[in-house]
Amino acid sequence: MKQRVVIALGGNALQQNGEATAEAQKKIATKVGEVIADLARKYELVIAHGNGPQVGNILIHEEAAATDKAPAMPLETAVAMSQGQIGYWLTQAINNAFIKKNEHAKVATVISQVVVDKNDSAFKNPTKPIGQFYSEKEAKVLAKKNNWTVKEDAGRGWRRVVASPKPIDIVEKYTIIELVKDGVIVIAAGGGGIPVIRTKVLKRLKGVDAVIDKDYAAEKLAEEVKANVFVSVTAVPNVYINYGLPNQQTLTNISAQEISKLKKYGYFKAGSMLPKVEAVVKFAKHGGTGIITDIDHLKEALEGKAGTIIISQV
Amino acid sequence: MKQRVVIALGGNALQQNGEATAEAQKKIATKVGEVIADLARKYELVIAHGNGPQVGNILIHEEAAATDKAPAMPLETAVAMSQGQIGYWLTQAINNAFIKKNEHAKVATVISQVVVDKNDSAFKNPTKPIGQFYSEKEAKVLAKKNNWTVKEDAGRGWRRVVASPKPIDIVEKYTIIELVKDGVIVIAAGGGGIPVIRTKVLKRLKGVDAVIDKDYAAEKLAEEVKANVFVSVTAVPNVYINYGLPNQQTLTNISAQEISKLKKYGYFKAGSMLPKVEAVVKFAKHGGTGIITDIDHLKEALEGKAGTIIISQV
Repeated sequence: MKQRVVIALGGNALQQNGEATAEAQKKIATKVGEVIADLARKYELVIAHGNGPQVGNILIHEEAAATDKAPAMPLETAVAMSQGQIGYWLTQAINNAFIKKNEHAKVATVISQVVVDKNDSAFKNPTKPIGQFYSEKEAKVLAKKNNWTVKEDAGRGWRRVVASPKPIDIVEKYTIIELVKDGVIVIAAGGGGIPVIRTKVLKRLKGVDAVIDKDYAAEKLAEEVKANVFVSVTAVPNVYINYGLPNQQTLTNISAQEISKLKKYGYFKAGSMLPKVEAVVKFAKHGGTGIITDIDHLKEALEGKAGTIIISQV
Repeated sequence: MKQRVVIALGGNALQQNGEATAEAQKKIATKVGEVIADLARKYELVIAHGNGPQVGNILIHEEAAATDKAPAMPLETAVAMSQGQIGYWLTQAINNAFIKKNEHAKVATVISQVVVDKNDSAFKNPTKPIGQFYSEKEAKVLAKKNNWTVKEDAGRGWRRVVASPKPIDIVEKYTIIELVKDGVIVIAAGGGGIPVIRTKVLKRLKGVDAVIDKDYAAEKLAEEVKANVFVSVTAVPNVYINYGLPNQQTLTNISAQEISKLKKYGYFKAGSMLPKVEAVVKFAKHGGTGIITDIDHLKEALEGKAGTIIISQV
């Protein structure tokens, strides 16, 4: 039986050297697609991906060019749009990687809603900057008009900030599991998923303007689909201690407990390696194998020969 | 065994009185979701939808606010974005209709590529206006720069025009069939699908800037998933002859052959009832039941009690 693997790809991975045209991003997707198609021979695959630069650009366009007749879409809908966009590029790239080998791909992008808790403390303290820069005055007018929180961003101007709540459920999980069982490579939970809450009385789903960390969302998905392995794909082959310093140390095989200690010592940066380490540790503690590596070492890492591999101590 | 039904919803259906905010469109989606959830008890459902006004607004935003760092997405990618957007709204609405009845929905939006023939004569004569209006001068500069065809649009200014080729295959058909068999309500082929061609030598998929008629694409999907019934949902309960005139006639049950004759006499308008009639006739000639009606009569029409119902003469 094939091992089931959930892979979280970075959103930045599709934009190298800041090239954000569809053409440039599709070119990189082509390479990713070949790696995925190759892995699909041996593993059942679910692919999650980030959307940071893509949803940022969608929002910039939506907001800068909004008119009464063509109003701007809110962040939650923009996340759905970015799932369509990136999902299409990845789907097509995977299709083409199979066509190259005269094979037929079974691959689909499923638009995914991810439930967050409306009482998540993150909503009280929004920290995630999103969309374009404004002057202080503009920012404050927009904040009042749209009920936004705005903050000064490191001397570069003012920006809207949104909450980054924790994922608690994947609405489309049953569908995703059915597809994986049917041998389909599923692209899901793009950009951390479209953030939705359950309303108090009726428990209905309702989109909220927030950003869910894609590694946390992908890890939750990995738990839900009962994956054997969860991989967070990043820009470097391994996790390091003292990265770039003379005493740099490469982490290869490490227990969830050990790497958690290093985390407590402050070795991993928030917004960078920290959420990845937290996500793989959580997955390892649920009994699976967590891996952090780059796309070039993904295959070897899944064979236990590369990357930083995290399992729980027995 | 449940009958399998493919329903094509109009893209305009979500924008009543031209209200294009996400909030207004979600409100209408809520009503559509309740109809769909109700039908799902009795039928296996695949929902296709238009995207005219939505993809138009996406393109307007993308093009008007494009910068070097945040370049405009091309039409084919904008279609993918609109599939994510509308698919999300419909999925959530269907979820909520089930939640209202204390039930769990099985529903998913699948991002869909639709293959067209690169030699389709439509590419030689692009006719479908898309995106914003320009002055003649601007339009001609953009045409040269982006390799666009531009045309004067009924005295309202200049616009880009793209081809509207015929759909010949649905790339994601196998996945869609698997899902329908698993009891999932599938939203697919949104906006007529992301138009792709197969490249000459390698037969790879490649997105092209074109617009596929959503009724033709939905009908092709209905054939592929071996649906029993194909419904084109429009703004009126029936197809009429001499609509609005004293000699108006309502079509109820009619054979594909008879309605084809009326079509030849020029009774149906291009860009309006004509593609719907052509699509249901094509489906009926393949042996299925074709229906044209509005959302309010959808349920009754499926029971043979409303709408214009088209089958092939035996």
